[in-house]
Formats: sequence, structure tokens, C-alpha cells
Amino acid sequence: MNRYRVLIDTPDQKGLMYKVSSIFFKNNLNILSNQEFVDNNNNKFFMRSVVVGDLTRDKLHDKLVEILPKQSNIKVISPIRKNIIIMVTKESHALGDILMRYEASELNANIVAVISNYDNLRKLVQKFDIKYHFVTHENLTREQHEEQFLNILSRYQQIDYIVLAKYMRILTPSFTQKYENKIINIHHSFLPAFIGANPYKQAYDRGVKIIGATAHFVNNNLDEGPIIAQDVKHIDHTLNSKDLKQHGKDIEKIVLSRALQLALEDKIFVNLNKTVIF
Amino acid sequence: MNRYRVLIDTPDQKGLMYKVSSIFFKNNLNILSNQEFVDNNNNKFFMRSVVVGDLTRDKLHDKLVEILPKQSNIKVISPIRKNIIIMVTKESHALGDILMRYEASELNANIVAVISNYDNLRKLVQKFDIKYHFVTHENLTREQHEEQFLNILSRYQQIDYIVLAKYMRILTPSFTQKYENKIINIHHSFLPAFIGANPYKQAYDRGVKIIGATAHFVNNNLDEGPIIAQDVKHIDHTLNSKDLKQHGKDIEKIVLSRALQLALEDKIFVNLNKTVIF
Amino acid sequence: MNRYRVLIDTPDQKGLMYKVSSIFFKNNLNILSNQEFVDNNNNKFFMRSVVVGDLTRDKLHDKLVEILPKQSNIKVISPIRKNIIIMVTKESHALGDILMRYEASELNANIVAVISNYDNLRKLVQKFDIKYHFVTHENLTREQHEEQFLNILSRYQQIDYIVLAKYMRILTPSFTQKYENKIINIHHSFLPAFIGANPYKQAYDRGVKIIGATAHFVNNNLDEGPIIAQDVKHIDHTLNSKDLKQHGKDIEKIVLSRALQLALEDKIFVNLNKTVIF
Amino acid sequence: MNRYRVLIDTPDQKGLMYKVSSIFFKNNLNILSNQEFVDNNNNKFFMRSVVVGDLTRDKLHDKLVEILPKQSNIKVISPIRKNIIIMVTKESHALGDILMRYEASELNANIVAVISNYDNLRKLVQKFDIKYHFVTHENLTREQHEEQFLNILSRYQQIDYIVLAKYMRILTPSFTQKYENKIINIHHSFLPAFIGANPYKQAYDRGVKIIGATAHFVNNNLDEGPIIAQDVKHIDHTLNSKDLKQHGKDIEKIVLSRALQLALEDKIFVNLNKTVIF
Repeated sequence: MNRYRVLIDTPDQKGLMYKVSSIFFKNNLNILSNQEFVDNNNNKFFMRSVVVGDLTRDKLHDKLVEILPKQSNIKVISPIRKNIIIMVTKESHALGDILMRYEASELNANIVAVISNYDNLRKLVQKFDIKYHFVTHENLTREQHEEQFLNILSRYQQIDYIVLAKYMRILTPSFTQKYENKIINIHHSFLPAFIGANPYKQAYDRGVKIIGATAHFVNNNLDEGPIIAQDVKHIDHTLNSKDLKQHGKDIEKIVLSRALQLALEDKIFVNLNKTVIF
Repeated sequence: MNRYRVLIDTPDQKGLMYKVSSIFFKNNLNILSNQEFVDNNNNKFFMRSVVVGDLTRDKLHDKLVEILPKQSNIKVISPIRKNIIIMVTKESHALGDILMRYEASELNANIVAVISNYDNLRKLVQKFDIKYHFVTHENLTREQHEEQFLNILSRYQQIDYIVLAKYMRILTPSFTQKYENKIINIHHSFLPAFIGANPYKQAYDRGVKIIGATAHFVNNNLDEGPIIAQDVKHIDHTLNSKDLKQHGKDIEKIVLSRALQLALEDKIFVNLNKTVIF
Repeated sequence: MNRYRVLIDTPDQKGLMYKVSSIFFKNNLNILSNQEFVDNNNNKFFMRSVVVGDLTRDKLHDKLVEILPKQSNIKVISPIRKNIIIMVTKESHALGDILMRYEASELNANIVAVISNYDNLRKLVQKFDIKYHFVTHENLTREQHEEQFLNILSRYQQIDYIVLAKYMRILTPSFTQKYENKIINIHHSFLPAFIGANPYKQAYDRGVKIIGATAHFVNNNLDEGPIIAQDVKHIDHTLNSKDLKQHGKDIEKIVLSRALQLALEDKIFVNLNKTVIF
Repeated sequence: MNRYRVLIDTPDQKGLMYKVSSIFFKNNLNILSNQEFVDNNNNKFFMRSVVVGDLTRDKLHDKLVEILPKQSNIKVISPIRKNIIIMVTKESHALGDILMRYEASELNANIVAVISNYDNLRKLVQKFDIKYHFVTHENLTREQHEEQFLNILSRYQQIDYIVLAKYMRILTPSFTQKYENKIINIHHSFLPAFIGANPYKQAYDRGVKIIGATAHFVNNNLDEGPIIAQDVKHIDHTLNSKDLKQHGKDIEKIVLSRALQLALEDKIFVNLNKTVIF
């Protein structure tokens, strides 16, 4: 018996559910869970099913291709461990949260490596027997620096997601386009508020009563891809900007890990510049 | 063109989605939204679809009955305004929130009457041109008191929901059984914690850092039916039990109104002693 | 026995607590509650005490003036009902929430009037026996329109707070400067995000997973004064921009009422462009 | 220049603030922050000041003893690193979160050892060069098992806090009394709800829409000491009890770490069976 996650993203038209469920039914696939969403504004249909049965993955895929519109994006996924690369700069909180979940076997993923533009998190990463690649950005153009990162990435086969766990440099469009909807970033504070440097200082100066964090895909601009998850925390005037940063870390790490978990479970669809989360 | 909400609650079996969607497809019904949930523990299937088409309500219902298991609970609903009765005691916050939404045409419902065991909210209710029935419980047994309430209820045709907006008396099983999954209550604090009198005093004495409210159907015990919605608020030691009560009111009214809204939109399924909310 | 709220806002210096508490002690005033905050960045000291005793208000004030720095802002307040004016446009949710609290005697305030640039909320306001002034902005310059509002305001003595309960027009600096730290506004969504028209549409288009509301004083720019209170709600992709607006209303009204309550209890200090909330 | 945290917990009486602030003023101590709370129900006064000056710790303590009531609890603390012991059973999430903060130098504490009734977290703990003591409870009475734990504890001087990071055995009153207000526990779900085994299963079966965690001191009963911090998360019907447990872990670890942080900063006062948190 095989178990598949079936992901369909297609222009909406009448009969889609009927067609897909008839494939499942006629091929004796049992539906364990099923969710659809129709974006009526953009006339798009999204569906995620978990099915169990004897059919091979390729046959199921072929049958779906046959009955669905040509422009459809169809994936039939065996839920095996995905491969992820983590990119960091100096801060350890978001990385550490992922490492601990990894150690506790809570992530259905292999962390194949951690890459950084600093060397100071090497010791932490190596505690968990994970490869650490340090490539300084000093004396390099952004393009040269990224090229070295890309060289490292090319050594690993099949990278499913790149997690920016507080990687503090802006990636070039040439880099992000290679990994469309595969780079997950965590952004302090709220998008689209407080874009730019020192957001916790900005939040403190503004006297906000709530701070938050946003996990999102990085497609073009660092802080502006499709939002995956957000959370917030109430604060008050007694906290200074250093306190805010510390509180922010707690939100950041939980939100990033939640977004990663959703990605590993294939629960995120990208719908233009937004996400559908099942 | 007719618009229907189709609600299906049935033992799970292979092919349910296929069968239902084939009815929709072959009768030229367009699916505007669709949600299913399979409770694998209890082997139950829940589905809510909004469809548009020419078929009459009765014909659609008959066709679904034909193809679904006998034990299925099938509803095909035209989204017309539902009739609700509100029961209150002395406090106005939950009632007031519903009245204001009613006045602003935010509720797809007719408030056909308010019934109370006190007379003090009459003036408020009558501002909104709604009938107010006062039946004191003094010198009456619980059964006698409820009988008078039931007499009033019987004057109104088709009561869809009874909203207990801080009605502080316990209803007898004989009363609640007449309106199974139709009585919505708001309960201070958390279920199943702090059951009994003066919950905010109990919460204060216990020194909790969070208080909340729960909206639920009342089937047997006042505070123990299927939970529809819950929310909470952080508090601290500076608040006394009177402050907690005031803060609690803000949560109570919003949670009750949210639960009512879900009920009016036919988004709640009862699954044993729990709810599935679409 | 008199009860006073003592509010002190002064440049920080050594011995402030000693000096103030010696006044209380030597004049036989009992401290019921006391809070201070030192903003070390701006070298400012804030203190709010509730005291009980025989001393007259004027004498207590004089004694505090005597021992505190010249630039101090000192208030000794008898906690009597404050007078508020509410300004609205067309939406009733924020206004309605305040009216219901007023009706339930939960606000320690007199609502002396409601002023609007539309006439459609008159019926609602008059249910509560409150004066309603309608001044259309049509065919008037902003200055002419505000002049009429100011004329109405001038008929009422001692207005403590003006509450903008979804008043959708921008006030001129000339207006806001007359009522510095006395105008409380509720702003959809987050400050400083989504400034401008149709914020819920902006939030929907951006695919945010959280929406919120901010209550703040209006000093210069409509959406940028000192923040008093904020709250948020988690949302998902199934909600359209109309749904977001409806959910937003629930947050807006609660946050505005909370801010108003803090103001009525003299618990808000303005510290540059921020607030200290005791 | 010395920096002290001054903690005062005393029966309330007139002039306390005056007396304490006069000590500070006359001895040339600068107050960096100051907070008081009067519990009027129980006639108790709590105060936490951070002061800077030349006075020695002992002299300041003596001067405060002199002027305060005999029953006062007075502490003058130099903010040095505290020593903590962590007790665990099998789960790593709460322990891991503390270890990561420790590694990132975010905790002002030495983790002197981890003690467990299982051996399986040894590898994780030793990655961070922290001593791990394994004492099985098998074939031992509760008293015998605790005696071995106490033997280990006795090897370490000055243990400020014992953190139960998902230590799943009940401690005897004889153990907890030795460490009154020094043992911090994290409890899944809400206190006092769902006491007993499998709380997430209980929460799932009850169909709750919110789950939470509570950090508290353990004085007598495992789950009933003074509450320090609580937090919650909204959930829905799609999550099974295993999912709830996973979501619960995220809340548990953050709430426990927050409570530990408050303890390390001497911000918690115990007031009967409740806490005052400054």
C-alpha cells in the first residue's frame, strides 16, 4: 500500500472535484484527508489530498494529467524526508530551535548542511554532527559571495528547502529565482511595517504595544514574498529595545519552525503573492 | 439560479466525495466552496458545500439521499435569515453586542424575542423594537418556570437557535433535549475549569494569568456541550476579581457573537461531544 | 475623606520618590496604589498614585508643586465622571460598543454628544437619549467643516476626551492642537503598516495571516500619535477582504473601548510620541 | 558603584514607601527602577527596586531591617549568575530550549547539572558540557528515589532554582518543602483543568479550541503552586491528540523559559498561593 500527497493547483472550472475524485475512486485509492480552496477573485482551484492505495506514483500522476487542464500544476508526493539547507549569520535562536527539533526527530527532514557568512555558529552546529560551511562576505561582491554559496549548494543533491534562520544579507534576484518558493525567511516585526534596519529599535521608538514575526517565501525582495505564518506578542512601555529584541526572538523561532513544518508536510500553496495553507 | 448550502454528516466510506461531486457535476451545479473532514477515530465524514445552479432544493436533496448511506444526515439549505430567541438574566454585555450587530444588519437573523427571568433589560431591548418577555422564577419550581418559557417559545414558528446571552439558570434536560444543538451558551472562564459559582473570583483566588470564555451548545449539562469557540486574554496580579469580570465580559461577548455567526452560516457540525467548524 | 489620583510627569532626578512619599506620609495620606516608571533614555520620571486622606485637593497640589522641579507636570484629580464627545462617520460598531458600556454604567463618563458628518447614526444615538449633531462636509472646505464642529464643541463645558469612533475624515493640525492628548482614534490594521485607503483590502492583497487595530492619541497626523492599545486576530486564506473587515470591526471596537477606559481612569501618560500605561 | 535588587515583602502599613525611599535618598542610592504592589485584600505590600550606589549590601540590608516591620521579608541581591539544576524525564523540548538560551548566553545562570530518571537525554546534555546524572526510579520507592536525587543536589553549593523541564514524576512534600518557591514546573494545558494523565488526549476528547501551558512553583501538589506564566494557542478540529501534543510543546517550552527568566531576574514574589510579577 502506498501513501501519497496529491497537490493540485489549477485554473478553476466546473467538475474538477468530480474528475479528481473519480480518479481516486476508480483506482481504489482511499482518501485519508482532503482539502480544497477556490480563489474566486483569481479563478484558481487548490486541492491537497492524502490517499492510500496500490497505484504507483507515476500512474496516478499520469491519470491526473490526463483529466486536468493543461496549465495545471500537479504533484504526487511520497512523504519521504526532505533535504534542507539552513543559512545563518550570527544569531543562534532560530537555528537552535530547528536543531533541537531535528535532534528530537520532530522534523521529517535531513539537515544536509548549515552555511554562514560568519564562523561563530560552527561549534553549535557541529554538536549535532551537521556540516558547517563558512564563507565570509568580506572583500567579495554580493555576486561573488553568492557564487560561493551556490557552489556549496551544488554539492548536495535535491535540496527541497533553504531556510534563512536569521541570515541577514539580501539575496540577489538571480539567487532567489533559482529557488522559487523554496527559500523560507523569518522577518522580525511585521510585514510590511518597519522594513529596514533595526526594526526592534524602530518598534521601540514608535511605542508599539505588540511585536511580531513573519515567515515567508523569498522570491524577489527579501521581506516581501508570500507570507506563510505570523505571530505576535503584547509588550509594554517597561521594555527597552533590547528587551523587545529578546521577546522577538521567541516569536521568530517558533514562527519559522512552524513555517518549515508546513513546508515539510507539503501544506503550502503559493497563490500569486499569497499563500493557501491547508 | 439557486444557491444552497449542502451539509453532509455520514459514516465514512470509500467514494463519498466521488458520489457527491458527481451529483453536483451531472446536475450542472457550480461549487463555490467546499470543505470536508474525516474523523478517522470515529469513522465519520463531514462535508459542507456551497453550490449554485438550477436544480430545486428538494430534487437536490432527493438525489443526495439516493446515493449516500442510509444513516446520513443531509441538509440542503437556502441561506435565508434564521430566527433566533435570546435568553438573558441581568447582564447586558452579551445581549448588547448581539443587538448592535442586529441593528447594523451584520446578523443574517431575525431576533424574534428576548426572554428573561428579570425585567431590567426590557428598556434596552425595546429600544430596538424587539419583544421582551419577563417571567420571574420566584415562587416557581424549575419545571414550572421552564414551562412558561416553553409556552412563549411555542408562540413563535421555526426557532432556529436559542442564544443564552448570560442566562444564569440551569436548564433541565427536558428543555435542552427539545432543542438539541440549537441552544448556544456562553460560559465565563474555561471549560472544564472553574465550574460553578463565581468563576472570576475562583480565577482571581487561583492567581491565573489568563482568563477566557467558551461558547458551546447546551445539550445536557449547562457547561459541558460541544465547544464552538473560545478565546482568552492575558491578565496580571494588579487586577482584582471585579476587574477580571469586566475583562471577561469583553471576551464573552465577542466569543458568543462569533459562535452565533458560525451557526447562522451553517458552519458548525456536531461530532459526538465536539464540533467540526468549517 | 478624599480620594485623589496624583499624576506626576517630570525630569528624573534623585529623591523624587522620597520627596513625593514624604508629602503623602507627613500629611497623613494613605497610598492605595502607586506606580512609577523611569524612562532612562529620556531622563523622565512618571508616577501615578491613588491616595486617600483629609487634605484638600488644592493643598495637596500646592505641596507637590513646592517640592518638585519647576518643569513638572502635576495633576491631582478627584475621580469624577469625565465628559466625552464621540465623533463618527457611518459605521456603528465602535460607537455601539461605547453606547452599550454607557448604558450598562460601565463607563465613568458622560457622553455629552455625538457629532457626525452623516445623519445615518442619529436613530441609534437617540435611542440612548444622547444628543446627535449632524454637520455634512459637502460643499465645505475642511476648515469650514471643522469650524462648525468646533462651534458645537464650544457649547459644551469641559470636554475631557473626544473619541473618534471611526470618524473617517482627517483633522487639521489646527483642530488637533486644540485638543492635544485628548483625541482618541481607532485605526484599522497596524500602525505604521497599511497607511491609507482600504487597509483591509491591502491586508487581503498582501495575504497577511494577522490583522489588528490600534487606538492612539491624534496629535498631528491622523494615524501617527502615541499608541495606547493594540490587539490582533489570526486569519487565513479563506477570508476575503469583506470578511477581514468584519473581523477587524471586532478588534477595533474592543481596542477603542479599552483605550477610552484607560483614559477615563487617568492611566495614560504621554512620553514624547509614546505612552506609559499604568 | 554597586547595583542591588531590593525585594521587600511586608504587611502593609502607612509610610512604607516613605521609609524605604528615605533610606535610598539619605544613603545616596540612585533608583533605576521601582515597582510596588499593595494587595488590599490581604494587607500586604510588595516592592522591587533596582538601586545603584556606594553602600555595601550588608549595610543597606541592615538599614532596611531597622525601619521595616519585624515580619518583613527583605532581600538585597547583587545580580550575579544564579545556579540552576534541571530535572527531566524523557522529552527534550523544554530542556532543549533552556540549553539553547544558555549556549547563546541569554540566561544569567549556570546550569550546574541535569538530573533524570532516564538516561536518554544524556547525549544531548553532554553536547553542552553539562553534567548529567541518571538515577532510575525502577525498583525504588518514591522516597528512595528522591533520596538519591537529594544526594546529588547536596553535592552542589547554593542551588537557586530547580527547573522541572518535563520531569514527569510527582515529588513528595518532603522534597518540595526543602525547596519552597525554588522549584519551577511546566504543566501542559491549563491549571486547574485536565489534571491527571494524558491531558492532550483529554483536551482532544473534549474538543477544546485552545490549548495552553502553565509555569508555576511546586510547593505541595505537583500541579497547584503559585502560577508564574501562562500562554495558549488556538487549535481546531483537524488536529489529533498527537498534533495537540506537538503544538503544546511549543507553548510549554516558551512559557517555562519565560518563567525561568523572571525568576533569574528576581521579578517574582509569592503572595499566598499566587504570584506578583514585576
